[in-house]
Amino acid sequence: MNTATRDPEAVLTETVLDTFARTPDPRLRQLMQSLVRHLHAFVSDVEPTEAEWMAAIRFLTETGQICDGVVRQEFILLSDTLGVSMLVDAINHRKPGHATESTVFGPFYIAGMPDRAAGEDMAQTPGEPALVHGYVRDTEGRPLAGAVLDVWQTAANGMYSGQDTAQPEGNLRGRYRADDTGYYAIRTILPVSYPIPGDGPVGRMMAATDRHIFRPAHLHFMIEAPGHQTLVTHLFNAGDPYLASDAVFGVKPSLVVQYEPRGADSPLAARYGFRSGFHEGQYDFVLPRA
Amino acid sequence: MNTATRDPEAVLTETVLDTFARTPDPRLRQLMQSLVRHLHAFVSDVEPTEAEWMAAIRFLTETGQICDGVVRQEFILLSDTLGVSMLVDAINHRKPGHATESTVFGPFYIAGMPDRAAGEDMAQTPGEPALVHGYVRDTEGRPLAGAVLDVWQTAANGMYSGQDTAQPEGNLRGRYRADDTGYYAIRTILPVSYPIPGDGPVGRMMAATDRHIFRPAHLHFMIEAPGHQTLVTHLFNAGDPYLASDAVFGVKPSLVVQYEPRGADSPLAARYGFRSGFHEGQYDFVLPRA
Repeated sequence: MNTATRDPEAVLTETVLDTFARTPDPRLRQLMQSLVRHLHAFVSDVEPTEAEWMAAIRFLTETGQICDGVVRQEFILLSDTLGVSMLVDAINHRKPGHATESTVFGPFYIAGMPDRAAGEDMAQTPGEPALVHGYVRDTEGRPLAGAVLDVWQTAANGMYSGQDTAQPEGNLRGRYRADDTGYYAIRTILPVSYPIPGDGPVGRMMAATDRHIFRPAHLHFMIEAPGHQTLVTHLFNAGDPYLASDAVFGVKPSLVVQYEPRGADSPLAARYGFRSGFHEGQYDFVLPRA
Repeated sequence: MNTATRDPEAVLTETVLDTFARTPDPRLRQLMQSLVRHLHAFVSDVEPTEAEWMAAIRFLTETGQICDGVVRQEFILLSDTLGVSMLVDAINHRKPGHATESTVFGPFYIAGMPDRAAGEDMAQTPGEPALVHGYVRDTEGRPLAGAVLDVWQTAANGMYSGQDTAQPEGNLRGRYRADDTGYYAIRTILPVSYPIPGDGPVGRMMAATDRHIFRPAHLHFMIEAPGHQTLVTHLFNAGDPYLASDAVFGVKPSLVVQYEPRGADSPLAARYGFRSGFHEGQYDFVLPRA
């Protein structure tokens, strides 16, 4: 690489940085100047051909155009599959060691889902019956009475209600509430592993780079308790074949739950109305103060 | 910054890089791994809040969705206004010193425009009459006979035909051909400075960062001659108030042309049919071998 011919390129980067110097909001100025520095460094490193740069323009355009404003959000998927969502999550949730770890929010959350009673079955479609229960506590071990657990997962076909319009509204979604002891109980079906949407630009990127598009089976949680940090996380099924290669890098060992088989004669079956065998997953959540 | 809490973030970046290690095409592997490295470095530097990251997701989504597949290409505009297009141009056109410099292609080119005779007027809308003429030569000064000059510019309202559907098709566009001596002559109107589209995400970014959205007046060229490098460039009008602050960083001093006023009695007026005063711009293009 010839230094003399590189000079004008470094000058260009400085010129672009200078044009952002008058940005009134200092945070926006910092964001834009850092973006320009890193983006130009990337381009200088890889030296794209003009055809490669146009391919990138087309890729980004198609990524925007496949978004439907409802459940398909391809830029979140791109951020997820490049590990950026988990990096943003890690930066924003550097927690005390014993607080429950967070993971990606994902694009499939829907607000305003039904309030559900303790142990109410949120599954309106078939699957392996399961109970997920435990306690929500603060970092001193005190119960967080009334904590709201907003929960969502896919049906046995690997699709979320809303994404899959054949499912009843609110299927496998709901808001549970912890009781005075912090105890919660969710009756549902076992989560299954499933592919992220593969028919768009992100799917093509994954195929071209020989990556699979599967996520290990998981149950989504957003847990809110007044005065405490909101927790966005998943519980993953132990033994899932994709635990070590989640397409969106969301797995943390502390979030893996071993589901245990229980008979129809177990006390929990009677308590929650299971008429046959089911799987029991136990998990206690710990939320730090806000 | 606590090193202990940063560690998992560095581990995450390495994990993401590893997932691209099996990419069959080595160039794609290099591009994706460099992208991940620089993108993660950017995120680690600015530590975006989750709200900032979602704002970025929305910005990119809207940038894709405002593209119309015809003349509105907001991602090219974003690349232009962040100086990335000019950087890609610089990397791909490190030329011998005496070859004509290149600049951005821009999003407004339309292929298949009319072939025009030497000196034919390509303006079907009013403006200040102008003649742009000169020679197309190789780096040894030999004429490039038959070189094709594909030319486009805005009308006096600052809009390109195609972008502005009120203009006749082919207005201020055309393909001229150099004669056996390499000479070309374009009759047109003086280019004017104009704003890039300001009603989309890029316009909002420019406003929020206190940047204006104007480009200095210019005439676009794509010049092709067999056996030689295709030249994509502009000629800029000397004296334009935006020469030092082009919104897309396209100006190079070697591409600025001084237009000289000429009377209706000049020999060029007779030769090219000007019935009143006009502006003469002279420019010789030099194309290196392919």
